[in-house]
Amino acid sequence: MTAHQVQWLFLGLVAILTLSGLFGAAARRLGQPAVVGEILAGILIGPSLFGGAVADALLPADIRPALTALANLGLALFMFAIGYELRFAELRGRSGLAVRVSVFSVALPFVLGVLLALGIAGAHPVRSRAGFVLFLGAAMSVTAFPVLARILADRGLDRTRLGGVALAGAALSDLFAWGLLGLAVTVAGAAGQQRMLLVPVYLAVMSLGVRPLLKRVFAGADEHGVSPAMIGALLVALLLSCWATEWMGIHFIFGAFLLGAIAPRGGRRDLSTEVTGRFEAVSGLLLPAYFVLAATRVNLAEVGLSGIGELALILLTAVIGKFAGAYAGARVSAVPKLQSAALATLMNARGLTEIVILTVGLQLAVIDTQLYSLLVVMALVTTAMAGPVLQLLERRAGGDARRLGDFEYDHQSLGSVPRISSKTGM
Amino acid sequence: MTAHQVQWLFLGLVAILTLSGLFGAAARRLGQPAVVGEILAGILIGPSLFGGAVADALLPADIRPALTALANLGLALFMFAIGYELRFAELRGRSGLAVRVSVFSVALPFVLGVLLALGIAGAHPVRSRAGFVLFLGAAMSVTAFPVLARILADRGLDRTRLGGVALAGAALSDLFAWGLLGLAVTVAGAAGQQRMLLVPVYLAVMSLGVRPLLKRVFAGADEHGVSPAMIGALLVALLLSCWATEWMGIHFIFGAFLLGAIAPRGGRRDLSTEVTGRFEAVSGLLLPAYFVLAATRVNLAEVGLSGIGELALILLTAVIGKFAGAYAGARVSAVPKLQSAALATLMNARGLTEIVILTVGLQLAVIDTQLYSLLVVMALVTTAMAGPVLQLLERRAGGDARRLGDFEYDHQSLGSVPRISSKTGM
Repeated sequence: MTAHQVQWLFLGLVAILTLSGLFGAAARRLGQPAVVGEILAGILIGPSLFGGAVADALLPADIRPALTALANLGLALFMFAIGYELRFAELRGRSGLAVRVSVFSVALPFVLGVLLALGIAGAHPVRSRAGFVLFLGAAMSVTAFPVLARILADRGLDRTRLGGVALAGAALSDLFAWGLLGLAVTVAGAAGQQRMLLVPVYLAVMSLGVRPLLKRVFAGADEHGVSPAMIGALLVALLLSCWATEWMGIHFIFGAFLLGAIAPRGGRRDLSTEVTGRFEAVSGLLLPAYFVLAATRVNLAEVGLSGIGELALILLTAVIGKFAGAYAGARVSAVPKLQSAALATLMNARGLTEIVILTVGLQLAVIDTQLYSLLVVMALVTTAMAGPVLQLLERRAGGDARRLGDFEYDHQSLGSVPRISSKTGM
Repeated sequence: MTAHQVQWLFLGLVAILTLSGLFGAAARRLGQPAVVGEILAGILIGPSLFGGAVADALLPADIRPALTALANLGLALFMFAIGYELRFAELRGRSGLAVRVSVFSVALPFVLGVLLALGIAGAHPVRSRAGFVLFLGAAMSVTAFPVLARILADRGLDRTRLGGVALAGAALSDLFAWGLLGLAVTVAGAAGQQRMLLVPVYLAVMSLGVRPLLKRVFAGADEHGVSPAMIGALLVALLLSCWATEWMGIHFIFGAFLLGAIAPRGGRRDLSTEVTGRFEAVSGLLLPAYFVLAATRVNLAEVGLSGIGELALILLTAVIGKFAGAYAGARVSAVPKLQSAALATLMNARGLTEIVILTVGLQLAVIDTQLYSLLVVMALVTTAMAGPVLQLLERRAGGDARRLGDFEYDHQSLGSVPRISSKTGM
């Protein structure tokens, strides 16, 4: 790196941190999650305005690779944390309801997304028609687990029954959506097809080799806490898993997510805060760079009149699919109408996760820039909707978050809270 | 970044983390600080063996800029922490002794280094003779504050009087050495000389603008703890300070160090662990990359017979200068002989800090690769010496670390422990 590049690296990071900090804080003041502001900041400095002159000035081309490297590292740590915080235990006792909500809230938008894709595929230069169709289906069926957790905490709903079901449902939906995305990426055949045949080998190595190995490394953590050597081993495993998935032509986020899902969480002692706490500082510094950089690829200037029609179609498909799907899943489980609507509103927030998925689609040329831009706007709108709609529902519940959050529903019908009936029910 | 580069970024980081982890652990098992192992790892994969084929294979040229960016970020955070952990309060009550130890332990090696530089300047292609001479003086007079803290903790000396004096002395020595390095860099005139005239303006802005501003940002930290917004503000200030110093043609480490020195430490509540704790995870991940990358620039293969003679000269100058200087400073303060020798041994460890300084010299072309290689070896040897020599001294003190660490000395002579006499004494 020349001295000039070093200077611009510092300035570029200052620009990203300042923009994401200010826009994130403004978003939170308006009752929105910070990521809404961060994405908006990226769009504003991107090519949509002034031909991207602002982004070119703040983040010159010759430091973009270094910034992207930093952002990718932040994303890998973040995706690890998402996988690591998947609490299968949380599903216990409400698995029936959560499974129904998530299956319905993934299936309907996926089907609608596929239909939409078949309709608009002709208007876009696509590399693989099947990959394109599957990708759009997957993109519609995403729920942003981390954003959802944030919204629940902000509104005091995180320790209510509604919050628990929403989180469990979102975690399951994420699993489905990642699976669909993996399928779409595979079908689109982005990289060497032969290498993808090694995916089962990779999965076997991860579950039969890496998982027990990490368990042994973390054996002493229950008693003596998490040591730097354990974190080091976890990091090496994370980077190797990222490399392996990237090498097979899948995206590294899958490798990071999977390692998070299989990493040891401790026995008597819960290690999650100790482990993710160390990564939070890194990803807190590097992740905003990812979202700002991702949003600078949005170009709303090239969206014409036809694009606006397409955006309306995409928004309708996304919102109706997700909302109706999740609502139906909850009603089938005999959840009251108001709470079913709240659940559906929460599941509709796509935030962060959608941006990650869209970036993968753009990088692998599964979608073009125009569609990417429209889908980012969709992610922004569906995420920003959640707060105001929830407020409306809260008012209808008597202005009390707990009355909205802690609903009663008939255990003997389809929905089943006790563990035993969840096995016999449905 | 292409998919290929992303893959190699992950593999490169795996290589660095694995190498630094294994060699660091091996060094610690041999009673050495981890940095000795990390530097050794870098030298072994560098051009000294097999023409650098190993480093080229593990860290390909097209990901070096991204790795260097990551390493630089880690270094900036690390230098901030060094500045932040400078405890001027620790000097209270032992300032007389610490000042004498540090002044002597900087002055003698500096003078010897200058003499050495005048002797060997003819054999090296130097950009600026005065800059070269000053740089070599500065490089000889460094003490590695962080390595010293590590050694003291490892040997159970950190809460003894010896440990306190050594730390305070090393902190002061670092201040002197950084000042000398700044002078050397300025004289060598690496970048636009006119911009350097702005250094007083920069210092004024930092102390009159940034310092009170950060104090106001951290006003609530005493009661409510350190918030993410405070950390964000601190990071932006850090990056801007790094940019400013780099832009003026000085190295960004000065900007990071200075910001650390003026950053608020809290009033009633000590914020240091909260603040540096968040950065430690980042720099713990990124800093090994810095040392490994720095050491891969060492080329011992091109050191000929004359080089070995020069290395012997450099080692003698460094060890005799530092050891005799610190010993004299302690003896003048009436510290017993054994403890004076222990202090001198500690001050002689140059570790981390020396590597940072040498890299600056190489980047600004103040020294050439051959001298860089020799000086890295010197840093390695002086650091590795400390452990065994201390063990020897401990054995002579009766095999007890506390008996070596907690010495008595005559307060009425030159050395002065109580606060009042430290103002009147000397």
